[in-house]
Amino acid sequence: MSNTRITLGMVGGGPTAFIGAVHRIAMRMDDRFQLVAGALDVDPDRGRAFAGTLGIAPDRAYATYREMIDKEALRPDRIDAVVIVTPNFLHFPIAKAALEAGFDVICEKPMTTTLEDAEALAALVETTGRRFVLTHTYTGYPMVRQAREMVAAGEIGKLRRVEVEYLQDWLAAPVENTGAEGAVWRTDPKQAGQGGAIGDVGTHAWNLAAFVAGEEPTHLLAELSTLVEGRRVDDDAAILMRYASGAKGSILASQVLPGNGNNVSLRIYGDKAGLEWRQESPEELWFTRLGEPRQMLRRNGAGATAAAVAGSRVPAAHPEGYLEAFANLYRDAADLIAGKAVTTMVPSARDGVSGSKFVQACLMSNGKGNVWVEIG
Amino acid sequence: MSNTRITLGMVGGGPTAFIGAVHRIAMRMDDRFQLVAGALDVDPDRGRAFAGTLGIAPDRAYATYREMIDKEALRPDRIDAVVIVTPNFLHFPIAKAALEAGFDVICEKPMTTTLEDAEALAALVETTGRRFVLTHTYTGYPMVRQAREMVAAGEIGKLRRVEVEYLQDWLAAPVENTGAEGAVWRTDPKQAGQGGAIGDVGTHAWNLAAFVAGEEPTHLLAELSTLVEGRRVDDDAAILMRYASGAKGSILASQVLPGNGNNVSLRIYGDKAGLEWRQESPEELWFTRLGEPRQMLRRNGAGATAAAVAGSRVPAAHPEGYLEAFANLYRDAADLIAGKAVTTMVPSARDGVSGSKFVQACLMSNGKGNVWVEIG
Amino acid sequence: MSNTRITLGMVGGGPTAFIGAVHRIAMRMDDRFQLVAGALDVDPDRGRAFAGTLGIAPDRAYATYREMIDKEALRPDRIDAVVIVTPNFLHFPIAKAALEAGFDVICEKPMTTTLEDAEALAALVETTGRRFVLTHTYTGYPMVRQAREMVAAGEIGKLRRVEVEYLQDWLAAPVENTGAEGAVWRTDPKQAGQGGAIGDVGTHAWNLAAFVAGEEPTHLLAELSTLVEGRRVDDDAAILMRYASGAKGSILASQVLPGNGNNVSLRIYGDKAGLEWRQESPEELWFTRLGEPRQMLRRNGAGATAAAVAGSRVPAAHPEGYLEAFANLYRDAADLIAGKAVTTMVPSARDGVSGSKFVQACLMSNGKGNVWVEIG
Amino acid sequence: MSNTRITLGMVGGGPTAFIGAVHRIAMRMDDRFQLVAGALDVDPDRGRAFAGTLGIAPDRAYATYREMIDKEALRPDRIDAVVIVTPNFLHFPIAKAALEAGFDVICEKPMTTTLEDAEALAALVETTGRRFVLTHTYTGYPMVRQAREMVAAGEIGKLRRVEVEYLQDWLAAPVENTGAEGAVWRTDPKQAGQGGAIGDVGTHAWNLAAFVAGEEPTHLLAELSTLVEGRRVDDDAAILMRYASGAKGSILASQVLPGNGNNVSLRIYGDKAGLEWRQESPEELWFTRLGEPRQMLRRNGAGATAAAVAGSRVPAAHPEGYLEAFANLYRDAADLIAGKAVTTMVPSARDGVSGSKFVQACLMSNGKGNVWVEIG
Repeated sequence: MSNTRITLGMVGGGPTAFIGAVHRIAMRMDDRFQLVAGALDVDPDRGRAFAGTLGIAPDRAYATYREMIDKEALRPDRIDAVVIVTPNFLHFPIAKAALEAGFDVICEKPMTTTLEDAEALAALVETTGRRFVLTHTYTGYPMVRQAREMVAAGEIGKLRRVEVEYLQDWLAAPVENTGAEGAVWRTDPKQAGQGGAIGDVGTHAWNLAAFVAGEEPTHLLAELSTLVEGRRVDDDAAILMRYASGAKGSILASQVLPGNGNNVSLRIYGDKAGLEWRQESPEELWFTRLGEPRQMLRRNGAGATAAAVAGSRVPAAHPEGYLEAFANLYRDAADLIAGKAVTTMVPSARDGVSGSKFVQACLMSNGKGNVWVEIG
Repeated sequence: MSNTRITLGMVGGGPTAFIGAVHRIAMRMDDRFQLVAGALDVDPDRGRAFAGTLGIAPDRAYATYREMIDKEALRPDRIDAVVIVTPNFLHFPIAKAALEAGFDVICEKPMTTTLEDAEALAALVETTGRRFVLTHTYTGYPMVRQAREMVAAGEIGKLRRVEVEYLQDWLAAPVENTGAEGAVWRTDPKQAGQGGAIGDVGTHAWNLAAFVAGEEPTHLLAELSTLVEGRRVDDDAAILMRYASGAKGSILASQVLPGNGNNVSLRIYGDKAGLEWRQESPEELWFTRLGEPRQMLRRNGAGATAAAVAGSRVPAAHPEGYLEAFANLYRDAADLIAGKAVTTMVPSARDGVSGSKFVQACLMSNGKGNVWVEIG
Repeated sequence: MSNTRITLGMVGGGPTAFIGAVHRIAMRMDDRFQLVAGALDVDPDRGRAFAGTLGIAPDRAYATYREMIDKEALRPDRIDAVVIVTPNFLHFPIAKAALEAGFDVICEKPMTTTLEDAEALAALVETTGRRFVLTHTYTGYPMVRQAREMVAAGEIGKLRRVEVEYLQDWLAAPVENTGAEGAVWRTDPKQAGQGGAIGDVGTHAWNLAAFVAGEEPTHLLAELSTLVEGRRVDDDAAILMRYASGAKGSILASQVLPGNGNNVSLRIYGDKAGLEWRQESPEELWFTRLGEPRQMLRRNGAGATAAAVAGSRVPAAHPEGYLEAFANLYRDAADLIAGKAVTTMVPSARDGVSGSKFVQACLMSNGKGNVWVEIG
Repeated sequence: MSNTRITLGMVGGGPTAFIGAVHRIAMRMDDRFQLVAGALDVDPDRGRAFAGTLGIAPDRAYATYREMIDKEALRPDRIDAVVIVTPNFLHFPIAKAALEAGFDVICEKPMTTTLEDAEALAALVETTGRRFVLTHTYTGYPMVRQAREMVAAGEIGKLRRVEVEYLQDWLAAPVENTGAEGAVWRTDPKQAGQGGAIGDVGTHAWNLAAFVAGEEPTHLLAELSTLVEGRRVDDDAAILMRYASGAKGSILASQVLPGNGNNVSLRIYGDKAGLEWRQESPEELWFTRLGEPRQMLRRNGAGATAAAVAGSRVPAAHPEGYLEAFANLYRDAADLIAGKAVTTMVPSARDGVSGSKFVQACLMSNGKGNVWVEIG
């Protein structure tokens, strides 16, 4: 029934913000949420006007996140959770305030811009007992979840190599100089955090690798580059990784390679088999057993694992995509917040800390001349 | 604002129905609708229980479509439109009743099971002045709309050949004998109408061909086959087509070919270029100019036409799919019903009549020994 | 040893002829042949000059095929076989003369331009006991041979549908009017035979369908079109087919669809599985068992059948292609001519007759208004 | 004419050797060579017997390379060039002996097993003035050559990143322990040289990167791994690279990743565009201009460069592959040896030295704990 929907208040996600719109579609997809409050824009008037178009009542369209948290905390019908879709540097203070006021949190990645903040936030999640969901999109794809389950079930054997790429080209030209949406704050260390590509897309790659492998590397060696002249942050990163087991891996994260739209790919190999997945064809997962014909596994098709079935809304061969993957994170969040699940596959504050450690380690390795550093 | 959402009452679409769930996701995607009433199941109790889980108030969970239409017609907050997602043979009486009661209609295809009914309904739409949307899913895909616009703009030159296939394998075995969901009524001529595959998937292919080509063939020659022994309807159809201009075409529609999930494809060629699209990779449209390198056009990417941009929610390379295509039909329906658009690309009752004429022509051609017949 | 190579005399295949060069590469690939004689060009001087560049001795560079056959017949070191790569209308008289003089024959398709000639030639092959190889290229591809073996082994179950396409675009414009190489004679009914596309590429499609299915349809219905205005032969053909078993099929053959280079494809479905192959990616064969994940079989890889292994020169993933497929026909021809094999997979005069019957049936069906006709 | 063919003597390439057979097919493809002498096997009797099947006269079937070089040097009809297809450790002494005796050389890669030997050999090539061709297969592919020409023509703009992979799985299990053909000597440092995967496939990747980019990196950082326990050489290598211009690159070379047959791929990006090529689909080259639709360039099709046309034997869409690529190296070798060309695209002794420097640098970087080292 309508009144069982989880109520949300959103911070950020104004009329021109890409990711805010994505969150709103994702939260609607399965009808488990209702967006009833918001501080949607740095410009309060614009934020309130936009809130109206979203069906948010005027008295719950707030000027600032502080106001939203304070006033909602006092309402009998207070929101259940806060959704954070602001530029990166605001994630921490908003999440902290929300948790301290007793709200659950759904937060865009990266969780924070520094490792200290990440650890502080994770500790706060622990002590408050609130639920905290970090929206690492790619872990919501059914075939990524299937890959994780297949690796865990031993289908690829002993881990040998994990290769993850996240390649884009939208920063291939110095678009920040012309004020391009999203490019300005993402290339400003003060707003985005110390890492550029390494934080913006590298952390997705890191998270995806760990999610599927079921383990994190212990050491990495990173080379961060700025391939567009004059840019203030790295826009390209190559990282080598070592696992405790002796397995190896690498991440290539770049935002300046023409022809790459949102080219996220994962390949993971063990001594028995390999799995290969590309975000731009997300319905397919190649499964390559040594000495056997290649198999193309399809979402919700033959050979689907439990999580792939659970993460599907329509049958195989009726393509699902990015928004459905995102909606799977919201579905998990709903289960968590509603108490229907204690743990899910959805990334948590621990993953946020892990991502921060990754960025930190990359910066350290790079700063020392691309040497191996221990992670975390 | 919430109260500007278009309100809907759904008929059919109970807890186990595939397409009803798809409609509900599609209507939520852009937050333009609210499902407030329903007669969701042949079993009224089950229907009411299910309505509750969808947030429909108990007094608007009806036992029959008749009850829903009669009672809603009397309410001051009466629904704006009726959504019909029942087995095929009920589409006509429900749509008729809804139109006569002054409701707009969003109806699953096929519009009716006979041509007379289709024509009667189209006439009724005309006389009542109500809006009528026929959910031919595949016309909602942005790259299908882009193909239509490119053909209309003369990009392929003078039309030569249109090839459409709709291949599945879910009826490859006689699953109706074991009571498989959806298979029983679809293979029962009384519930599905006279055509089997020709009606169920052939009409989609027909609609897709006409939508993109911008014209309909004048003649066809059809061979309908029943390749699974004992089945009471055709499950495979091969159709040749002729256009007034001299162009040719063909449709292959089959539900019994192993390895085909929901393999819808369109290829259209003129004297200057060709366009190729596959539903299972819906984000890509191949554009092949004679004597030039093949171009892969991507949704919302370089070379996108107006309709492709308008039909996109996220940037290129963030895959959209079947549910987003469906949601595009709902978005168009919202514009129509809200009076924000007079005409849209979304299929109408005229397309329903066209589909019926197609099925009729196929049956006639087949009955006479696979001869050419005029369509309509 | 060198002197154990089979010796060949070639008719046609002058300096600008595409297919003659292909035959020469194919015959060299496995070092089983030696080209020692030739009547390579309608212009005897040009033919002799070209023969010199191919290592043919001056006294075996003949002015006409007649001269070649007469003089070679008298030599103690006479050639073993005649290779015919002329325009179509000359295939018959040359082959006849060669067989009558006691030579084996390797002949480009189509075998003849009329059915009578085809039957006469097949009879002559029978009475003379000579070997006759018809170079239907596509049957030389290892994955096509694997498909044939898998069908024969029952891997797809009871046959349901065979779909073959042969699409090109090199005749998309009226290039014969500007004297384009190969286009002039191919669009001249006197030189090419009655069929245009139906003979030039349709017969390949027909042969491929029969080769893989292991059976020929009994009836067909054809629509032949001339989509380029002013052309004197058909350039586009759509054909429906029926098998004695109740299975269905279709062939689409066209040379005027922009974007199609040499787009030959075969799909064959039974009640248990399907097989899909495309000439432009010839190393892969999709095997789709009902209810199981799709398998991509690769040449000489896991799951390879005997013929696919035998038809491979290098390991899987080291691409072989068109020339190797052609060389497989020559390898088979070598085995036949050397008496190392009695029968092989390579097409024979019987296949030439079958191709003629196919063209004949298409012309008859088309002439009568696209009705079903019995084949042969 | 036959007597204008270049005559060859082969060392190695006995009845079970893979690469020897490839060389023989490649040399026959265009009829520019004749194999007239050989020392084909470590077992002289087996070598002589095999020579007979190849049409080599008994008196030119030698027991050892030494015998072949000495005796051929004295013949009036002495061979023009020596082809070396032995295990790696013999390349140097044979090539040296051949050059010193005045023969041209066609040599399998790697040129030598140490850098000293490579430099000595290159010097010898210089002083003797003989032609020396190193058969780095992948540079023979027309689309690789087209990529090189497009990069040189400025099509991708200022170089940003070069990514090359060479992945296989045939050493994924410890097959050398069971005596698998080729695996024993390749995993024996004495026969293969110090590098395992780095030498066997890494040098191909290195060569391919340099060939297409038109420049070599100045520094690299390598991590060599042995992922199959007990193996005596590296079987997996990840390498970061830096170019003088500031561009970056990486190579991944591994022979132990299940599902990779002969997965060679190249991606090269500049500030204007990218080019992407995969050996397993060698006919296609993706060309991705920033902000424009992706183009798929096809061998000998629209947009083909001079070298791609020259390297083609058949039209676009008639697939060529590995053997044709190899034959392009032989065609170039023929032009060089016949004096028809002074320089070609075919790799030379300089490339052999470069490959050795690469291996050397990888070993040094790895030995020092994966630090940056200068190359050469």
